Amino acid sequence: MVSKGETTRHLILESALARASLVGLEGLSIGGMAKEVGMSKSGLFAHFASKVELQQQVLQLTIDRFIDLVIAPAFRQPRGEPRFRALFENWIRWEGSDWMPGGCLFISTANEVDDRPGPLRDLLVESQRSWLEALAKAAQLGVEVGHFRHDLDCRQLAYELYSIILAYHHFHRLLRDPTSRTRVDQAFERLIRDAKP
Amino acid sequence: MVSKGETTRHLILESALARASLVGLEGLSIGGMAKEVGMSKSGLFAHFASKVELQQQVLQLTIDRFIDLVIAPAFRQPRGEPRFRALFENWIRWEGSDWMPGGCLFISTANEVDDRPGPLRDLLVESQRSWLEALAKAAQLGVEVGHFRHDLDCRQLAYELYSIILAYHHFHRLLRDPTSRTRVDQAFERLIRDAKP
Repeated sequence: MVSKGETTRHLILESALARASLVGLEGLSIGGMAKEVGMSKSGLFAHFASKVELQQQVLQLTIDRFIDLVIAPAFRQPRGEPRFRALFENWIRWEGSDWMPGGCLFISTANEVDDRPGPLRDLLVESQRSWLEALAKAAQLGVEVGHFRHDLDCRQLAYELYSIILAYHHFHRLLRDPTSRTRVDQAFERLIRDAKP
Repeated sequence: MVSKGETTRHLILESALARASLVGLEGLSIGGMAKEVGMSKSGLFAHFASKVELQQQVLQLTIDRFIDLVIAPAFRQPRGEPRFRALFENWIRWEGSDWMPGGCLFISTANEVDDRPGPLRDLLVESQRSWLEALAKAAQLGVEVGHFRHDLDCRQLAYELYSIILAYHHFHRLLRDPTSRTRVDQAFERLIRDAKP
């Protein structure tokens, strides 16, 4: 059974995630979140000892959710091209999640922490590395089942899939470019075509 | 002749650009910049009426410089593949400019303003649109001189060139990945190969 304290903590984190999506993890504060969820500041401190702890838990929640919504469902698809396509589709859907109204928290956090060593940076770097590994692994399985060519550079394919998602986020959110979905689909099809035997 | 006031204004802007590269345009303040350049706050207000004006001028300086260092020198190269390669090379060099110690100001500003309508967002969007146009134009000239195939989707190529630069910035700065230069080079060569007749 989930305790009342655990439920409250989770509700605060959900609300903090949505807020961080708009103002960045740096823009979060214990005082601001207390106001947002209608609690006292000391009530919030009972759940998060510091701003850094709040930021870390928000980032960890987002990482767990990315695994649940993007990685895990794709790895339940058949190996090879279907799984690789599912990773792409799930990821594009992720970028438009309505519980991240200000866009992908990983991309905004990357901009915030790339010059700031510390636990937030470490957590983000570790997650990004493990997804690149997961993408490369999915590509490698595609080679093993014969959907992709045997001389495919799987890490390069992982890097390029990541590239087109980053560009989708950039153009879709900044330029509000109505063609951005078509562009990313075309780029993805070119990647798949080049990967085939 | 450049006036003393103009020189001072320019020195403040240079210093503000370096600072914004680290903390974002949002992180700039008139007070902070006054301290940074050893002037009084009212001295700074003589040059910039508000924080927004300071931010706009820093962004405009960065845009002008991008044109001077990336776009213009490439457009002095022969049309077609040499010019397209020069755009890529100049842009990669731009991402490592030592006067932007915290990385590309356009990318961090994109994250800051994508949800905030206003003059900063308008200025950034306008610049990004015009570079996509310039890239597509360079690709189109490549088709005209026969370096690229006649059915090439020039806007798609522009979008994909932009994608790999965004990924280079992300992986190079966040993951400090030593292979990021090789990865972006390989991605670029694949783009060029696919564009050829």
